[in-house]
Amino acid sequence: MARTDIARRVYNHTWKLDPIVRSLLDTDFYKLLMLQMIWGMYPKVDATFSLINRTTSVRLADEIDEGELREQLDHARTLRFSKKEMIWLGGNNFYGRKQIFEPEFLAWLEGFRLPDYELSKRDGQYELSFSGPWMYTTLWEIPALAIINELRSRAAMRAFGPFALDVLYARAKAKMWAKTERLKALPGIRISDFGTRRRHSFLWQRWCVEALKEGIGEAFTGTSNVLLAMDNDLEALGTNAHELPMVFAALANSEKELKQAPYKVLQDWQRYYGGNLLIVLPDAFGTASFLRDAPDWVADWTGFRPDSAPPIEGGEKILSWWRERGKDPKQKLLIFSDGLEVETIEETYRHFKGKVRMSFGWGTNLTNDFEGCAPTETNSLDAISLVCKVTEANGRPAVKLSDNPAKATGDEKEIQRYLRIFGEKDRVEQLVKV
Amino acid sequence: MARTDIARRVYNHTWKLDPIVRSLLDTDFYKLLMLQMIWGMYPKVDATFSLINRTTSVRLADEIDEGELREQLDHARTLRFSKKEMIWLGGNNFYGRKQIFEPEFLAWLEGFRLPDYELSKRDGQYELSFSGPWMYTTLWEIPALAIINELRSRAAMRAFGPFALDVLYARAKAKMWAKTERLKALPGIRISDFGTRRRHSFLWQRWCVEALKEGIGEAFTGTSNVLLAMDNDLEALGTNAHELPMVFAALANSEKELKQAPYKVLQDWQRYYGGNLLIVLPDAFGTASFLRDAPDWVADWTGFRPDSAPPIEGGEKILSWWRERGKDPKQKLLIFSDGLEVETIEETYRHFKGKVRMSFGWGTNLTNDFEGCAPTETNSLDAISLVCKVTEANGRPAVKLSDNPAKATGDEKEIQRYLRIFGEKDRVEQLVKV
Repeated sequence: MARTDIARRVYNHTWKLDPIVRSLLDTDFYKLLMLQMIWGMYPKVDATFSLINRTTSVRLADEIDEGELREQLDHARTLRFSKKEMIWLGGNNFYGRKQIFEPEFLAWLEGFRLPDYELSKRDGQYELSFSGPWMYTTLWEIPALAIINELRSRAAMRAFGPFALDVLYARAKAKMWAKTERLKALPGIRISDFGTRRRHSFLWQRWCVEALKEGIGEAFTGTSNVLLAMDNDLEALGTNAHELPMVFAALANSEKELKQAPYKVLQDWQRYYGGNLLIVLPDAFGTASFLRDAPDWVADWTGFRPDSAPPIEGGEKILSWWRERGKDPKQKLLIFSDGLEVETIEETYRHFKGKVRMSFGWGTNLTNDFEGCAPTETNSLDAISLVCKVTEANGRPAVKLSDNPAKATGDEKEIQRYLRIFGEKDRVEQLVKV
Repeated sequence: MARTDIARRVYNHTWKLDPIVRSLLDTDFYKLLMLQMIWGMYPKVDATFSLINRTTSVRLADEIDEGELREQLDHARTLRFSKKEMIWLGGNNFYGRKQIFEPEFLAWLEGFRLPDYELSKRDGQYELSFSGPWMYTTLWEIPALAIINELRSRAAMRAFGPFALDVLYARAKAKMWAKTERLKALPGIRISDFGTRRRHSFLWQRWCVEALKEGIGEAFTGTSNVLLAMDNDLEALGTNAHELPMVFAALANSEKELKQAPYKVLQDWQRYYGGNLLIVLPDAFGTASFLRDAPDWVADWTGFRPDSAPPIEGGEKILSWWRERGKDPKQKLLIFSDGLEVETIEETYRHFKGKVRMSFGWGTNLTNDFEGCAPTETNSLDAISLVCKVTEANGRPAVKLSDNPAKATGDEKEIQRYLRIFGEKDRVEQLVKV
């Protein structure tokens, strides 16, 4: 008797749409934390998010079919937070805290849907943007990126037969497992999944998260993906992102206000969150100027997430700064999250071991590392540096300087103005792979 | 750990074409027997086969996408007999006989491919025809019908979700199994699968054949489907079809030749085949006239396959005819194959038990009975009466009268001429369901 399940097979081969994003919880946790603050304090601010492909050699509009892209984006717009999801958001402890989300916020969230998008093609790239109230557009970032990245993988795999696919995933699994074995050898390491936006696919991210859970056990501290956290009883992790200082800076009406913008973010944040959620993201307009001008109370925060400086050099500067302010780095936390590979994690871990608490937010190289896995050579499965950044706030241009000039975004004239105000100290150009 | 096989899933959802016919052996065995004779004796005869949908209420051109139909037909044209298939055709015993196919014929068959087709739409129906040398066009009949029937099922199931499909097939399986239980209760019955052309799908036919094998054991004598016979070590069954007398009649140059055409078929056939392959198909131009004018040697043949008269009435007439010719029907074989349902099989079996050897070639109601199986009411899964008949031979119109006027095919004026020559005795109009 042949073992074909005819019903299942017929179903598999008559699919109309294979949705990439199937839940509004399939996003990064920090988006929800930020959203509560935006909803509470800045409900009238408009913000535009725009897709930026920094890997210009990859012509996304040639690789991905526009019709499929629209279908996926349209499908994401049909999503609502489900009852189960709302109950979980309200009832689960996050960072050891009950009811981190206010009932009024959750009541509003229940009616949330993603707003409309604008999509066109230009020079082989997609111009995709989301305009409207910040408290709506902000939630597009992660699903938009996940959709484009997965559509790209799908397109790349369309030519593969069943065995090529079997081999592809077998190799990727073997590769991933070898990484967990290396990481397991680092006592006391703490690693979490930050790979939602750049993942190869949802199912592959899920596999990686589950593999990490089994492979490194206690060293795996959780995932930024809220849906995966809920489904796998993992900690949902993440704090805040560049969009906060970027919008605040864009809204500043004077040079003084602009220079204060990064600290105003922290003050606002503190009204909502405490403890381990008090993590400073210092590099929006350069870490050096941030530390130089920071008020003393910033040193009371739990930790920093250096996100664009070289990790050891950048981390050491933060340690010095803490020491100058009379703080013992051993009580402090550094969260590394910029383009981590196993090698970087190992080096950084060895360097800082015993000096500071550390945590690694592992992204693209966790959930989208298929290099050398395809049976036939292809670049189409290599991850690209795709971001979705806030580009305007209330009609004014938004800018990010970063510690790495290659990661700067925004209008060039505005970048120059910001550089004059914040300075260029310690900015180091590094190749942005992902 | 989630149990999704990612590679398999990606493969399932990126299919380009799900070919319905994947082997030239996925056809009825009698087509190959006839083909050898056509190739050997009538290689210069041209014959056109045309699709005829007798269920005119079903608008095939509305239900089936033309692009998909062309893709499937084009795919069938890429097929060749594979090495394994050629070896099996040459090495297997058919009807107890070694090397039923001549080496020269097999050598020619190795290069065989299906010829081109003509396809257009008219009044909601497809006009599909195959013109050219008979020894090529003849092999289109079965794959063309199987393709159209399965495309129709696929279209009908497109709207079904995974559970609706699961229920559909579960019910169809339960229904099918109940039939095997009824048939098992008839001692000594002999049943074979004749359902290739009208099947719901290839996989479903395979399931039915395997279910019959397990369900009725020795009573299941084999299948007309050569591929399923090869793959399941079953007997490949079938002898000859109406196209032989129809072409011979069309080529007749006089009334005398026309009246002799049905017997000339048998003479030619006997040059190639013997024993249990000597089965007369008597109804092409009416069984009554066939028996009335038949030479004595026809009574020496192993049996008859009455294919359009009511089975008991029609069978009794053949028994009488044998007795008149001094033959004992108990030594003879009747093969019933016209629109059989379990009820007809039971009645016919009970009526003829002990009087004559019997065999049932079970077609449409074996491999395409989904009535009442769909969770939502639909007619789109009901089998229809679709045939692919020879309509011209060397440019002359071909005609079939049949014992059932509803099954007559061909130009109306020609039908009237044939009726004048062969007579109308015993023709009984019956509803043609399938």
